[in-house]
Amino acid sequence: MSPDIRYCRLCGTPVERRVPEMEDRDRAVCPSCGYIDYVNPINVVGTIPVWDEGGPDERILLCRRNIEPRKGYWTVPAGFLELGESIGDGAARETLEEAGARVELQGLFAAIDIVRVGQVHIFFRARLLDLDLSPGPETVENLLVGIDDIPWDELAFRTVRRGLELWVADRREGRYGVHTESIT
Amino acid sequence: MSPDIRYCRLCGTPVERRVPEMEDRDRAVCPSCGYIDYVNPINVVGTIPVWDEGGPDERILLCRRNIEPRKGYWTVPAGFLELGESIGDGAARETLEEAGARVELQGLFAAIDIVRVGQVHIFFRARLLDLDLSPGPETVENLLVGIDDIPWDELAFRTVRRGLELWVADRREGRYGVHTESIT
Repeated sequence: MSPDIRYCRLCGTPVERRVPEMEDRDRAVCPSCGYIDYVNPINVVGTIPVWDEGGPDERILLCRRNIEPRKGYWTVPAGFLELGESIGDGAARETLEEAGARVELQGLFAAIDIVRVGQVHIFFRARLLDLDLSPGPETVENLLVGIDDIPWDELAFRTVRRGLELWVADRREGRYGVHTESIT
Repeated sequence: MSPDIRYCRLCGTPVERRVPEMEDRDRAVCPSCGYIDYVNPINVVGTIPVWDEGGPDERILLCRRNIEPRKGYWTVPAGFLELGESIGDGAARETLEEAGARVELQGLFAAIDIVRVGQVHIFFRARLLDLDLSPGPETVENLLVGIDDIPWDELAFRTVRRGLELWVADRREGRYGVHTESIT
C-alpha cells in the first residue's frame, strides 16, 4: 500500500519519519531540503462499455487479462489515472488501450474504495460506438457478453465484480444511480 | 504538478527517465533496484455541509482559510484524501477537522478535475447534524450563510465556486445530480 520511503526523491538525503508542522500524521520528511514525500490513494479509472443497451443485441464488453495480477481472468477496461488527463479521459483512454474500443461516456457510475490498498476505482457507464475492437497488449481477447452470461466466477477483481453487479441491478430496475462504497 | 524526481525513494540511487516495458510514457526508473516512481493525480475530498436544507433556516457552512494558499478566503471543508480512509470518510474527516462539524453524507455530488495541477476534487452533499461548530487550526472562522448570501467574490478556489454553483442550481431545481467536469 505504501512504499518504504528511505531517501528524498529530490536531493537523495535519507529521510526522517515525523509529523510535520500543522499536520497530524507521520510523513517522510527530508531533513536537508525540507521536501515532504506525501503518499495518497490513487485512482483507477475505467468503463462499463455496453453495445445496444436495452436493445435486442445488448452486450457488455469484457477483456481477458494478459498481465499479472490475475492474468487470464476477465475485467472491464480500467487502469491508473495519469497526470494530464481527467477521470473521464483516463477511463476512455484505458478502454481504447485495452480493448481497442471507442466509447461515449454516459456518466459517472461508481466510486469504489479499496482502503486496504490505497485505491479508488472509478467507473463510468459507456456506450460502445462500434464493434471494431482490437485487444491491446494487456488483453488476450475481448468478449461481448449478454447480461445473463457474465462469467461471474472468472472475474479478475472484486471491484470489477461489484461494478458489474451494480450495473446489472440498475439495468434491471431501468434506472442508473451513482454508487459509492468500500470494499474491505 | 509533478515533483522533480532525481533519486530513488527506496535505495537513494540517481534515477533514469525512460519508458518502462509494457508502458507508453516516461517514468522515473531506478537503474539499481528497478523501482518505478509513479506520479499520479491525487484526490481532494470535501463536503457541501447544509443545515435545514430546503427549510426556513437553511444555511450552508463555509470556512475562512487560515493557511496559504488563499488565506482569508472562503471555502467548503476539503483536503487531501489520506491512506487508510474511503473518499466519504476523508470528506467527513476534513469537515470535522476544518469546521468542527459533524455531518451525515448524502451522496457523491461532484468530481471536478483540475488537470493542470493533477488533482481531482470530490464533493459530497452533507447534512449538518448540529450547530456546535468550532474552527480547526486551518480555519479562521466558520460562516453559516443563506443561499442568496454566498460570498461569490471571496471564494478561495474555482473548484469551490463551481461546486457551490452546481449545488445552488440543483437546489433551485429541487433535484440533485452527480456532476463530472474539468476546470482548465
